[in-house]
Amino acid sequence: MSLAPVLAQIDADLDESITRLFHLLRIRSISTDPVYKTECEKAANWLVNQLTLLGADAKKCDTPGHPMVLGEAFPESAAGKPHVLFYGHYDVQPVDPIDLWDREPFDPAIEVTDRGKVIRARGAADDKGQLMTFIEACRAWKSVHGDFPCRITFFFEGEEESGSPSLVPFMKDHKEELTSDVVLICDTGLFQSKTPAVVTRLRGLLGEEISITGPDKDLHSGMYGGPAINPIRVLSKILANLHDSDGRITVPDFYDGVPELPAEISAQWASLNFDHESFLGDVGLSVPAGEDGFTPLEMIWSRPTCEINGIIGGYTGKGFKTVLPSTASAKVSFRLVGDQDPHKIRASFREYIRSMVPEDCKIEFKGHGASQGSVMSTQAPEFEAARKALSEEWPNDAAFVGCGGSIPIAGHFQNITGVTPMLIGFGKDDDQLHSPNEKYDLESFHKGMRSWARVLAELTK
Amino acid sequence: MSLAPVLAQIDADLDESITRLFHLLRIRSISTDPVYKTECEKAANWLVNQLTLLGADAKKCDTPGHPMVLGEAFPESAAGKPHVLFYGHYDVQPVDPIDLWDREPFDPAIEVTDRGKVIRARGAADDKGQLMTFIEACRAWKSVHGDFPCRITFFFEGEEESGSPSLVPFMKDHKEELTSDVVLICDTGLFQSKTPAVVTRLRGLLGEEISITGPDKDLHSGMYGGPAINPIRVLSKILANLHDSDGRITVPDFYDGVPELPAEISAQWASLNFDHESFLGDVGLSVPAGEDGFTPLEMIWSRPTCEINGIIGGYTGKGFKTVLPSTASAKVSFRLVGDQDPHKIRASFREYIRSMVPEDCKIEFKGHGASQGSVMSTQAPEFEAARKALSEEWPNDAAFVGCGGSIPIAGHFQNITGVTPMLIGFGKDDDQLHSPNEKYDLESFHKGMRSWARVLAELTK
Repeated sequence: MSLAPVLAQIDADLDESITRLFHLLRIRSISTDPVYKTECEKAANWLVNQLTLLGADAKKCDTPGHPMVLGEAFPESAAGKPHVLFYGHYDVQPVDPIDLWDREPFDPAIEVTDRGKVIRARGAADDKGQLMTFIEACRAWKSVHGDFPCRITFFFEGEEESGSPSLVPFMKDHKEELTSDVVLICDTGLFQSKTPAVVTRLRGLLGEEISITGPDKDLHSGMYGGPAINPIRVLSKILANLHDSDGRITVPDFYDGVPELPAEISAQWASLNFDHESFLGDVGLSVPAGEDGFTPLEMIWSRPTCEINGIIGGYTGKGFKTVLPSTASAKVSFRLVGDQDPHKIRASFREYIRSMVPEDCKIEFKGHGASQGSVMSTQAPEFEAARKALSEEWPNDAAFVGCGGSIPIAGHFQNITGVTPMLIGFGKDDDQLHSPNEKYDLESFHKGMRSWARVLAELTK
Repeated sequence: MSLAPVLAQIDADLDESITRLFHLLRIRSISTDPVYKTECEKAANWLVNQLTLLGADAKKCDTPGHPMVLGEAFPESAAGKPHVLFYGHYDVQPVDPIDLWDREPFDPAIEVTDRGKVIRARGAADDKGQLMTFIEACRAWKSVHGDFPCRITFFFEGEEESGSPSLVPFMKDHKEELTSDVVLICDTGLFQSKTPAVVTRLRGLLGEEISITGPDKDLHSGMYGGPAINPIRVLSKILANLHDSDGRITVPDFYDGVPELPAEISAQWASLNFDHESFLGDVGLSVPAGEDGFTPLEMIWSRPTCEINGIIGGYTGKGFKTVLPSTASAKVSFRLVGDQDPHKIRASFREYIRSMVPEDCKIEFKGHGASQGSVMSTQAPEFEAARKALSEEWPNDAAFVGCGGSIPIAGHFQNITGVTPMLIGFGKDDDQLHSPNEKYDLESFHKGMRSWARVLAELTK
């Protein structure tokens, strides 16, 4: 089946594709906040409907959390072609701080910027826009050729931004339906906004929330300041101790399983000419703040981290209140690499924190997700096929790269169905993922759809 | 003029006194939050009306912030008697965390507890209940004897809980009206909830808000975690460095002007048999957390402190968000003693913090109030008169004590009118000032009114 008319159809149908994406972007599917539960439901229903309209056999699958969407299309002509599974997620990050948005986050629009047209909305890039590139590529294919080029399974999740609590049990329960020859995941970006990329390394993620309680009620700092312990002070001390002066993480045994970077990978990365200065400069920074002795690219692709993602305690409103608070809490997360074991690290972290809590304080922990890092073997022929297809669509040749984020789904496919997934995405570095004013370049969306059409063509040659 | 019928009148009118106090407690006069500006106005108007009903010449005086209330009564019979000024404040602290209140904070009620009847409401003890003890004592006096026992000036402030920005300019502008022979301030407590007390030492207060900005926008901790600096981590490190391992404050020159405690004062305090264990035990603590080498009473009455009153940064909602935030901020306050200069300490603090901020971060400061500690000389005869009057009302004899809080008004009277004020109040240690479920014992209110009647009688003998 020829590719050229499919690409032409994608170009011709662009406005309609945008209209459909806008429908999805208007749904406030923030998975971490229970307030938006019905919005997540709504997004799942919308996707089931889209897949059904494309002729797939689609269903919403309930979980203890937000629903999964599963769809399958098995064209008669697909015999002998590889079975392709595509994964994306329909949930999005919270929108706060809301006052930093220049428009309502769930009222998408095309905006014209210095760097071209962008689709502005929460989820535009992460991951609704990316997810839709594949659906739209399939739509164009079907519209031109009457059916899909191969057997395709669509798998959409609604808990990716909140630790995916239902994912592994669901994948285990649906192992057969989720087993395919090729897995495509669209939740990553171009390399340095210019070069198409297949991600072959991901960091794992471990989230921990810690709450420290000192006095059993809020106190007046005049009456008790001095003899009464202050939980914010205790928490600050603990958090300050999590890194040493070289930027290394002090949790005992934390670096167990962190591999040395092979010299050939290091050389390959160096050849990418990553622009460290503009990478940091784009967000108002100039000094790499990670571990001594590593390049910023190595810090992101091959080194683990410990970040404080949130902290709160005492009076945080306008003005001043001389309160000595009862509790203070922080959200801490670790990005993990290689064979670091998130469960061992969780246990070691908790023991370490407990050892720093003074006698008079109580501490509580709450875990949020735990996933290992993963490294894909690029030996399978589909990796070369994807690299070829992407290189034809974009000005630069495609690269095999790392990714500092955590897309645990990659490891789950490896562990559960035994298939090494290919992570291909079209996001750019300035997409402001998880931040106010998230956007997805119109070019990413358009060339993303064309890229999938090319990848499908190459895989089914 | 005889005292006994005044005391009897106070007893007989108790229910009406409570009704009037409840009116004042229903007004949401939170001075630190601009949302409640008209409520502060309302409280001032209500007090002007009360003073006018008592026959005083009363007025509301506008300021750049919340209004002051001034009232004066000058009975013909007052010739030769001392001119007494009474100060209290009608504003209250914010009510958050609101979910820890067992009832609506501005819906006062009498509650029966294990320890007797209490008046439950925000401001019941701090300072509306205390302020009303004096008004009600004057009302009883006037009702029995047809007029007040001496010339009385009433002076009520509405910014005490928010750093009193208008106070000093106002006092300077109204120096003549505010000059008297005796100043009575009712914003303190009994000693250990049992012994009436005249406070002769107060700590000063210096408030600073610090905001640290790293990246110029919130970032995804997967994409930037490692090379990008995290302002919460920077802030934690700074706050953790504010105390050394002995609990001493590390701000350079901070202890300049902190006096050694004279041996006789130390001995006098030891003789008060302060119950350190139950003082801490009442709030769920057991280990004094202040500087090594001082008793808890010394920590509160004679030593300076540095407290973190609030901290916020990143994602603090439900669930988890792997954000690497752009900013983090904290509210820090110092309690000062002796000759510590709040302005010098502010400058030193800011320089010290700046020295700890990494190159890639910006820091902003916002000052909130700056007042020096004060020590009253107890040589003036009114101190002995007050001690005698209070000892007659309460089971234990009155004591001269210190107070860890900051009542800057005391120092202002000393500096502006040259009169050393007497701080007498009837609060108890478990009043939960500035905390959820604030209360004022009915006994405090009732015996407070009777105490003022006795003090007025003794001062005008």
